[in-house]
Amino acid sequence: MRFDEETASVAAGDSRRLELSGAWNIADKPNGGYLSAIVIRAMRDVAAHPDPLSVTTHFFRPGLPGRRAEVDVEVVRSGRSTSTTRGRLRQDGKDRLSTVAVFGELAGSDVEVGPHADIDPPSIPPPEQCTGRDGGPQGVELPILDRLEVRLDPACEGTGEAELRGWVRFADGRGVDTLALPLFADAFPPSLFNKIGPTGWVPTVELTVHVRRRPVEGWVLARFVVEDLVDGRFIEDGTLWDSSGAVVARSRQLGLLLNVDAADR
Amino acid sequence: MRFDEETASVAAGDSRRLELSGAWNIADKPNGGYLSAIVIRAMRDVAAHPDPLSVTTHFFRPGLPGRRAEVDVEVVRSGRSTSTTRGRLRQDGKDRLSTVAVFGELAGSDVEVGPHADIDPPSIPPPEQCTGRDGGPQGVELPILDRLEVRLDPACEGTGEAELRGWVRFADGRGVDTLALPLFADAFPPSLFNKIGPTGWVPTVELTVHVRRRPVEGWVLARFVVEDLVDGRFIEDGTLWDSSGAVVARSRQLGLLLNVDAADR
Repeated sequence: MRFDEETASVAAGDSRRLELSGAWNIADKPNGGYLSAIVIRAMRDVAAHPDPLSVTTHFFRPGLPGRRAEVDVEVVRSGRSTSTTRGRLRQDGKDRLSTVAVFGELAGSDVEVGPHADIDPPSIPPPEQCTGRDGGPQGVELPILDRLEVRLDPACEGTGEAELRGWVRFADGRGVDTLALPLFADAFPPSLFNKIGPTGWVPTVELTVHVRRRPVEGWVLARFVVEDLVDGRFIEDGTLWDSSGAVVARSRQLGLLLNVDAADR
Repeated sequence: MRFDEETASVAAGDSRRLELSGAWNIADKPNGGYLSAIVIRAMRDVAAHPDPLSVTTHFFRPGLPGRRAEVDVEVVRSGRSTSTTRGRLRQDGKDRLSTVAVFGELAGSDVEVGPHADIDPPSIPPPEQCTGRDGGPQGVELPILDRLEVRLDPACEGTGEAELRGWVRFADGRGVDTLALPLFADAFPPSLFNKIGPTGWVPTVELTVHVRRRPVEGWVLARFVVEDLVDGRFIEDGTLWDSSGAVVARSRQLGLLLNVDAADR
């Protein structure tokens, strides 16, 4: 499957190497979730546990598609029930992102042990009644849509609310697993654009994804909301449910709202 | 002020040193927010920007009060508008926690630039009509209450909901600033105990605090909620408002719900 092929790095000395694919681009830059997935996968190879429970990524610079990248990962702490790892992705000698991830072993979405609390999924139309993502009025090119199918709840359109709901899955039929969920959490258009229009550039400073359960097969339902925008900085919260209706991941990012002029400078 | 005295570390070679205070203990272990504050403060000394915008801490082992600790900090990336730093606190040669923090320059709570969105504070009684925190039916000793005044909204009592609201400030009159907010985000009793009772032990795996504005003087209002508890792991969300009613910080942690027997093993 393409996700697995395009996130695979190979050992080269103390480091790992790969060529960044341009297939996960948003406009001319690789999606941050794709870059993170490369590092998370390399971390999982050195961790003693299989599932990412908590992944925090700091984004420093955009990746350069079609060019070689180096990935460094190390185990910071290995415990009985969790392993903590650290990693980074570099190109041209400059760090593009840095990640800390805690791995553990998650239960499936059908398992309930002890007390629990859950967030109910929103009620939205099935994927075939939702609308595909597009480049918006600015006609941004979205090569990533050949890799990920994204469908948006039409009820979100024109509400002026910074909230988006919809569905996501791999376009080539690859199954969903705990490695895919941090990627999916970064694949939706910025919910802030639903409030203020698709103007400007919204780079992520820091994104933390908590994976909560191993997902069952099928479309993943997602909701992203910005409740809090101050002085050009916003917090976006995301929740992902699998096709059984169970919460499988939560995400929160600190993003910047820059105008395009400032971003060009 | 005691917070400033008890979080100060002094340079010793490439590292920094201090003796951990026992005054911020919950039972016999220092509060995680106190340990983090030591590291954040040392990070701020090396960062080119004054305010922590995003602080992610991974907790590995409890701190040992009354014993010497070493703090290591380094700048990972220094940009025009933000600095990213990394740090850790060690005792007996073992990492107790590890932190990544992004520093920048925040506006005051009276400044609004461009589009914004806000979360309204809950309406709760003033501090003098709220109840002090205590050690609960188990009579846990809380030395930290000599350092931080915490008042809880009595309306949260007995609801069975995993939600706590209340007020917090320094007991010695120290003012609130952007360094205090990550500490305050860790000073409330676990909101989960309001749902399941004060049973067991709820260690934090990872805590991220986003500081949103420079607070104005006065009590800080806080709300903590657990909406999501699965297989012994929960996500607790917090929001902090200053006395003007402006959001000044958001927090999210991944915590473990362990029973006391398991914790003793």
